[in-house]
Amino acid sequence: MDTMNHRITLAERPVGAVAERCFARDDVPVVSPGAGEVLVEVAWLSIDPTIRGWMAYDFYLPAIEIGAPIRSVGLGTVVESNNDAYPVGATVLGMAGWQQCAVLGAGIQVVRDGVSPEAALSIFGITGITAYFGLLDVGRPSAGETVLVSGAAGATGSVVGQIARIKGCRAVGLAGSTEKCAWLTDELGFDAAINYKTEDVRRAIREACPDGVDVFFDNVGGDILEASIGNLALHGRIVLCGAISQYNDTTSRPGPSNLTLLIGKRGRMEGFIVLDYMHRAGEAIGHLSDWVRDGTLTYRTDVVDDLDNAPAAFNRLFTGANTGKVMVRL
Amino acid sequence: MDTMNHRITLAERPVGAVAERCFARDDVPVVSPGAGEVLVEVAWLSIDPTIRGWMAYDFYLPAIEIGAPIRSVGLGTVVESNNDAYPVGATVLGMAGWQQCAVLGAGIQVVRDGVSPEAALSIFGITGITAYFGLLDVGRPSAGETVLVSGAAGATGSVVGQIARIKGCRAVGLAGSTEKCAWLTDELGFDAAINYKTEDVRRAIREACPDGVDVFFDNVGGDILEASIGNLALHGRIVLCGAISQYNDTTSRPGPSNLTLLIGKRGRMEGFIVLDYMHRAGEAIGHLSDWVRDGTLTYRTDVVDDLDNAPAAFNRLFTGANTGKVMVRL
Repeated sequence: MDTMNHRITLAERPVGAVAERCFARDDVPVVSPGAGEVLVEVAWLSIDPTIRGWMAYDFYLPAIEIGAPIRSVGLGTVVESNNDAYPVGATVLGMAGWQQCAVLGAGIQVVRDGVSPEAALSIFGITGITAYFGLLDVGRPSAGETVLVSGAAGATGSVVGQIARIKGCRAVGLAGSTEKCAWLTDELGFDAAINYKTEDVRRAIREACPDGVDVFFDNVGGDILEASIGNLALHGRIVLCGAISQYNDTTSRPGPSNLTLLIGKRGRMEGFIVLDYMHRAGEAIGHLSDWVRDGTLTYRTDVVDDLDNAPAAFNRLFTGANTGKVMVRL
Repeated sequence: MDTMNHRITLAERPVGAVAERCFARDDVPVVSPGAGEVLVEVAWLSIDPTIRGWMAYDFYLPAIEIGAPIRSVGLGTVVESNNDAYPVGATVLGMAGWQQCAVLGAGIQVVRDGVSPEAALSIFGITGITAYFGLLDVGRPSAGETVLVSGAAGATGSVVGQIARIKGCRAVGLAGSTEKCAWLTDELGFDAAINYKTEDVRRAIREACPDGVDVFFDNVGGDILEASIGNLALHGRIVLCGAISQYNDTTSRPGPSNLTLLIGKRGRMEGFIVLDYMHRAGEAIGHLSDWVRDGTLTYRTDVVDDLDNAPAAFNRLFTGANTGKVMVRL
């Protein structure tokens, strides 16, 4: 491996859409791992909407410092180890950041043999664990209930809908193109899909969920959240996982005008962050593995090559260009 | 008792503030109770914000029919009984409506000896039970946490803050006048009170709740809800009990612009309706009785005389004229 580490760092905090000038590229000497740490040669990066928050402000984790690599989950091979749990040659997941070589101390997860990098990042990393606990622990659907998912053709949403189906629920997805909607219903087994760009969303939800929405898993926020509240069933639950429609906003946008409906509907709206569930990651990964193995859970990846293209890959999330999990192959 | 029953009925569904023309007055023959029913001579009426919803639309209960008495909890004496559980002479609470005589079948609660009508309606009726379960079952505060209450000088809010204190929490109330705020801190034992009409609410909450708001019990909605979200502590809970600031709205009003803060804060916002807890009313009444007896829980009433003044009493809720529980004495 090189003695220099190529990195993409935070040059400037974003205001609105994340512009190229927010990023800088540099090459710095590779650092040796300290006691208990490992040096990882990064092969893949997980590109997630939450990075937008980290770039801008303290958001459940401290903001990325100016000049530091963009924070990001990555997958790679241990090339130097001071920790017997992660020997040289092991494939690991961790908060590698947008760089070729990362020193990792905590939060390292070994990727088991036979699990591809794509599967690891799409299903067994943050994405799948988010879908699993967000739906099952926060949303708590029962068999026969209707689960509505926004950003359903995205990495997390597509897994949420499939888990809902596996648990005997009716799954309805919101996505932004005919192709994405077809993927949801034809390949992933969603019961219905709504193109939020071309349909009257509130009416479409009402038609697709005639008994109301029991669980709404929201990755998007904004108008779609309002429409879902309007269609919420009695005792319905809204899982606030993300609000990608608003992450690039430069002015505050009014919230749903129908929030008081939650009173009569006894609705619950709850935010969550997957980091709170990482001590139970094994539980999620066990079930997710079974479902991938028996073919009930599938995924699609949106692979961009080359570390230097990570900013472009990142922006695909906000334009809705991606279907499935966006990742960068170094 | 008279053979005629004087009533105030729904003449027209309200749009905006409830105008006098929404009400009609009539006198109809007293009806005899059927099997299992009792005839009650109504002595007191409980005047609650939720009546605004019942007048306008289906809102967890069907809308009041045009020409029917305004739905309302009332207290009175059984004067004719076909039910041994409620003998003639018993004092009972039930959904009497705005009328002199009511036939009641279900949902009747006997008022125990020694409990005044004022205490029954302020504490042991819907009001106290709402405060008890809304705070403890939905809000779930722990000792040492901060509980913020809007409409704190109102019937429900004043009980919520006192229960919070009894449970070892810090209680902070929002109210609309210096006098109300003084009542909260000087007589009810709130740790702080904020005059939302004269203070910068968001800043005042931040100063009064330096560690953030662990539980926000909301009777008001609107800007106060947004300010509370901004000050919510990690894992904070918002109990949506009412939204009196919006009940008279004729156009939909934007919701809180900062709802996505719930994600990073892992916040939970949950609506509830006390009717869901009526099977556990005895549990609440037992504790509330103890607290009234030992002087840790007090209440204030806002009594208006004469059935014909019920509409005027009702409007006191919306102008904020009342401190404590609004009730009509027939």
